[in-house]
Order: sequence, then C-alpha cells, then structure tokens
Amino acid sequence: MKSNLPDKIDTLFINCHLATMTDNSLSIVENAAIAVTGKTISWVGTKKELPKNYKRICQILIDCQNGWILPGFVDCHTHLVWGGSRSNEFEMRLKGATYEEISKKGGGIFSTVKATREASRHDLFSLASKRVDALLKQGITTPEIKSGYGLNLETELKILDVVNQLNERFPLHIDATFLGAHTLPLEFADNPDGYIDLVTQTMLPKIKAQGIATAVDVFCEHIAFSLDQTRKVFQAAKSLGFKLKLHAEQLSDSNGAALAAEFNALSCDHLEYLSLSGAQKMADHNVVAVLLPGAFYFLKQKQKPPVKTFRDLNIPMAVSTDLNPGSSPVHSMTLTLNMACMLFDLTCEEALLGATINGARALGLNLSKGSIATGKDADLVIWDIETPADLCYLAGLTPISMVMIQGRIYHNDLQC
Amino acid sequence: MKSNLPDKIDTLFINCHLATMTDNSLSIVENAAIAVTGKTISWVGTKKELPKNYKRICQILIDCQNGWILPGFVDCHTHLVWGGSRSNEFEMRLKGATYEEISKKGGGIFSTVKATREASRHDLFSLASKRVDALLKQGITTPEIKSGYGLNLETELKILDVVNQLNERFPLHIDATFLGAHTLPLEFADNPDGYIDLVTQTMLPKIKAQGIATAVDVFCEHIAFSLDQTRKVFQAAKSLGFKLKLHAEQLSDSNGAALAAEFNALSCDHLEYLSLSGAQKMADHNVVAVLLPGAFYFLKQKQKPPVKTFRDLNIPMAVSTDLNPGSSPVHSMTLTLNMACMLFDLTCEEALLGATINGARALGLNLSKGSIATGKDADLVIWDIETPADLCYLAGLTPISMVMIQGRIYHNDLQC
Repeated sequence: MKSNLPDKIDTLFINCHLATMTDNSLSIVENAAIAVTGKTISWVGTKKELPKNYKRICQILIDCQNGWILPGFVDCHTHLVWGGSRSNEFEMRLKGATYEEISKKGGGIFSTVKATREASRHDLFSLASKRVDALLKQGITTPEIKSGYGLNLETELKILDVVNQLNERFPLHIDATFLGAHTLPLEFADNPDGYIDLVTQTMLPKIKAQGIATAVDVFCEHIAFSLDQTRKVFQAAKSLGFKLKLHAEQLSDSNGAALAAEFNALSCDHLEYLSLSGAQKMADHNVVAVLLPGAFYFLKQKQKPPVKTFRDLNIPMAVSTDLNPGSSPVHSMTLTLNMACMLFDLTCEEALLGATINGARALGLNLSKGSIATGKDADLVIWDIETPADLCYLAGLTPISMVMIQGRIYHNDLQC
Repeated sequence: MKSNLPDKIDTLFINCHLATMTDNSLSIVENAAIAVTGKTISWVGTKKELPKNYKRICQILIDCQNGWILPGFVDCHTHLVWGGSRSNEFEMRLKGATYEEISKKGGGIFSTVKATREASRHDLFSLASKRVDALLKQGITTPEIKSGYGLNLETELKILDVVNQLNERFPLHIDATFLGAHTLPLEFADNPDGYIDLVTQTMLPKIKAQGIATAVDVFCEHIAFSLDQTRKVFQAAKSLGFKLKLHAEQLSDSNGAALAAEFNALSCDHLEYLSLSGAQKMADHNVVAVLLPGAFYFLKQKQKPPVKTFRDLNIPMAVSTDLNPGSSPVHSMTLTLNMACMLFDLTCEEALLGATINGARALGLNLSKGSIATGKDADLVIWDIETPADLCYLAGLTPISMVMIQGRIYHNDLQC
C-alpha cells in the first residue's frame, strides 16, 4: 500500500510513534510516518507504506528518533493577559485565607484589575508574550485567552486587542473570549444590573463590531453573577452570533450548567458542584465539561467534579491549565495532565484526550485542531518519551524535541 | 566603600537582586553585584560599592537585567539512577492500589530492581544523564544520588559507578549515597538478616575500598527494615567512616529518627509519622528534617510531617524532589517548592531555604554550597522573576536565565 501519498510533501516525519487522538482514544500507530504539505497534514500511515525513495519525495525529512508525536495541546481555558503580580497573596492563601475572603476584602482579583487597567498596552503585551512563549515551549499550540481583568470598556478592549496582537506575533491560533462578566467591578458594587447593562448594551456590540473575540464567557457563581444575569449576557451574546462558554458550579451549585446547555454553549468549566440534572442537560446539548485541576489544587478544594457521571453520560472531558494569577498560576499542560490524573482520577488516556481533541471541542475547533489526521492542521509535537502515559506521569518534566505549528517548526531540540 | 574587592575577578554580575540564604533567611540584597574568581564567590555587595571602572576590572561582565540570583538548588535526596519504566504502574496506583500493595505483589520497586540489574552500565548512564541534565536546567546544581535498585553487590557497585561517571561527565558536584538497605531483595525473602550481613560485611567494605560513596542510608519501615537491622547497618557504616542518613517514619512510626539521632546522622527523610520524642532527639543531635512533598503527593498521603514541631524545635527543614520512578517521578525543584508550600504549609522562605542551605546541611556541604557568600562555591542561578516567592508560586514554570556551576556557565538564555 503506497497509495494516497500526496504529490507534494514539504515535511516528512519518520521513525515515530503516534497517538493520533482520533475515535475518542489514543489511537496509537507504531512505526509511523506523517506527511505535511503547507499548513496541513497531508498523509498519515506507517513507515512500511512509504515508497523506497521516500527520502526524495519531501523537502524536509525529520527523523524522530523513536519519539512520540501527539497533536499540539489545545489549552481551552486561560486568562493569560494580566498586569501586576499576585505572588504576595500566595502566602496569604497558604496561611488560610480563602479565595472568597480575599475577594470580599477587595484584594484578589481587584488588585489584578487595577494593575491591568493601569498597564500600558505595550507592557501587557510584553508580559503576555512571555507567557505564550512558555506555553508554546510546553507543547501548547492552541491557547484560548479570556479577557475579564478590565471590567470597563476601555480595558476589556485593550486586553482583547493584546490577544489579537499575540495572535499576529506568534505563529499559532489563539481563540479570544470576552469575559466582561468575570466579576462585579467595585464602581458598580451597588448597581450590579447596571454593570450587566454595560456588558450587554455597550461592550458586546463594540467587541462584535471590532471582531476581536469569537466567544463570550460568564462567571456564574454567588460571588460573581446570578443565573438571571448570566441569562441576560447569554441572550445578548447569542443574538450577536458569539459562541458561548460558562464558568459553572465551581464553588456551589448555581444551576449554571443547565442554563448553558439551554443556550447550546460549547462548554461548562470547573463543575466541582455540578448536579446530576445539570450533567444530563449538558449531555443532551453536547456541552463539553472543561476540568481545571490547577484551580482545584491552588484553592485546596475538596469536592471533585463528577468524573464518573461524565463517563456514564458520554460527556467529553477537556483538561486545561486555567492559567491566571489568582487561582491557577499553572503554566504547564503536562503538570495539568498529572493533576487531572492525581486529583480527579482521570486515566492517562482521558487526560490526554482532554488536552487535545476535547480541548478543541470545547472551542468548536475539533475539525482542524486536536487530532492527527489527513486534512487537519499540522500542529505537531515530538516528545522524547517511551509511552504517552509518561506525559502524565513525569511531573515537572517537559521532554519536547520539536514543536511544529501549521507546518512551521517553532522549536527544535532534535539533533539531526 | 569600595574595599574588599579581589584583585582578580573572572565574572562580575551586575543589575541583580540576591536572595543569599544566609542567616537562616532569604537575606535579600537589592541592586547587588557578585564577583566570581575561579570556582568561588570572591565578593558580594551592592552595585554602589563598585568602583567607577568596574567594567574594566573583570574578564566577563554579566548584566542580569534585574533578575534575581539565588544559590543553585541542592537536591539532597534522589534515586535518579534506575533502569526500566514505571509509568505502567502509575495507572494502577490511580485506580487505588497502594504503594504497599504493589510492593507486596512483587511489583513496584522489584520491577525497577530487575530492570536495573539487567541494564548495561552504558544504558544506565545514558538514562541517568538525561535526568541530570533535566535537573540542571531546572536550577539544581548539587544533587545527591542514592543507589538501592541493585540489592546485590554487582548492581549496587554498578549504580554507584554510574553516579561517579555522572560526576565526571557533568560540571557539578554529586553526592553519592549507598542505600543497599532500600528493600529486601526477593532472593533473601526468607533470610532478611542474611541480607543485612551481605550489606554490612560485603557491600559496605567494598564500597569503602572503592571510595564511590560518602554516605549510607537505610529505609527503616515495616515494609523494609526494622530498627535493629537499621542499627546494624549504621554501626558498620559508622565504623567505616560513612556519613549517615535515614528514610524514617514515612508510612508509620518506627522510631527510626531517634536511632538516627543517636548515631548523629546528617538527616532523617520523609517523617510524616514522626513522634514528638523523635523530633526532640533530632533537635538534640542537629539532624536535618528532609521533607519530600512529591512522594506525599504521589502516594496520596494524608498525614503531613510535623512542620510546626520542626519550627518550634529549630530543626532545619530541607526540601527535595525524591526523584524516583515509583513514589516521586518529580523532576523539578520549583514544582517541589510549590508542593512544599501547598501540601506542607511551608512559607515560601522556608521552602527556598529548604532547597538551598538546608539541603546543603542535609549533605554536610553547607560550608561550600547552598548560600551566596564570599568563599562559597560559585553555584549561581539567575531567575527571570519579580520576587523569590515566584519560584514557589508559578507552578510549572522554570524561568531560568543562566546557570553557573563552580564559576563556569552551564546554561545561558540571557540576551546579552
């Protein structure tokens, strides 16, 4: 079988094993080969299927030295554009202050909002660039980034503008999400509905007009926005054609997931306190469950998301870093995979699906991202590991040999 | 004050802040400078104290771009020379099997012993080299490495020989520890005292004669060796002049710490089940408490080591990765620092002291390693962080700009 090879091959990977993440499993191919033409994968097979003259049919031949190739990670939930630092609060939390207590004291997220409002566009971009570069070197080729540390029109636009600048500066795809309804800004403390009006009547139309975000997210929680307020934001966002996502049931059961399902949201995220009926609604409407073990770990939570229910109801589980300065300063997907296994009892296969194809599902990008198949984007990472489970097991190690994004090599440690 | 500068300076670091880790605290120096002559630190001060012609008084001038310099980490407890892989057992543990159950089934450590016995010296060295390189790139400049996956004379010698080869291959100091009494090998299942005789009468003298280890360690635990057996190994080791260390009170209180104190051991390690009387004996004999949060995390332990008691009794706390394939596949000191804070409630300062000067104390190397002061080894790491606490807080990130070991630059990402 030497058929189906494309006429033109830019890059041919040989001497590799694949976890293609197709068919909701690792779908391993040993002694494999992958051809890349332009920005996409043009052929996937085994080395045996290659013609004898395979060295002459490609521009670049990459000997993977028996490494494993997985799709680049899709990190479907981050807040990585922020100003200031919160390491000072880290010790406060260590000493027992809860997320809610810090929040109520006007510290926590409001210190980040203040610093983000005060930061110049240039400084915000510079800080965020460092973080994106770190994610890329950890094998994340598609991050989602939410706004939400502005909480006024000017700063929310500034953040989304920085996200779009990052998209231009780095050779990867970044999905931008508007999270104006992240928390109630102090200046609206006595007028929460007034802030919701600002979000729905001013911010959303402006963001739509500028085309700088594709999705809208809300933090539905007793310390943030109510179910009714969430509904108002979703209604406005849906009428403008945005995709929807929801921070749901992180600290309590607010019935947010059921609402999100009713609106056919792409995902509900966190979900530690999700009810069975909420899960059933998610299943009915194909909503992805995004698990964020880094936040669970940093907040020292005890109640785990209902993983068994997700399995029973065939709800796809995505896994993401939730990178943010307050509750999840986690910069690594492999560390997140490890935590998903150790803290939420996912199998390694489930965790890896969560960081690839199910992360892509949570962004509505699963036709192009998150798996290895002909026609998909050539976002590929070569790992110097013995088995895919090593990515979950070897904590604090990121043994990357090469990162390719849309057919271009971004990082290369292979000695060849 | 421009005095005390040495006549000859090889490398001068400027535009940096220091956490010198002297006087049992971070001992921060802002706007600092460090001079290195040969392998050692020859001067520490502030930039203001430098003469105007400072650019001309050194061979190499390093502008740290406002980064922080800390002493290289001392990782005082690792088992990093092993054959085979245990990622297959990772899922077994996730599904509920305990460390003890796996151990009793002949799996766990015995699979590593089998693979280590079968591995060629070349293969063991190659595997361990990768791990040492990873540690170095994470800022660890002084690792300790224990044997203990051989459990027969030939393989224990092979492992220690590989450790000594690593010491020659890499430009760092590695402390080698003989841990023949790690667990009872299967061939001695019916004759544990016979194995202790082998350790004390054959292995120890041979290792002493070859000069390939400086310390001796024992795993004192109901699944490993009794207090009496530990005493026998300590007596033999002490009479040969070895430094002593002990795996003590990890899974139960075996009174190991008190015994180790009686023998003036350098450290007791793990200590989750340490009694107050054991702690008091450690305090009386200046024994360092080595905390290993990675193993606590991977074993899903609930009982924490008595950190408050260590504080009350002024027992120095070291923090280490415990890098090993079974209970702590943790390859990163910054991740370990984070876990020490999150899981054991150490402050960031305590964690950082634990990974530097107290790690050095646990190896008896505190006169040359683990702090920044004139006359100490020039083992220095430049970090691109805003405050030392960031090293504990930014999980999964290792923002290293440069690693210097004994005056030589090993790794350099600074753009200068």
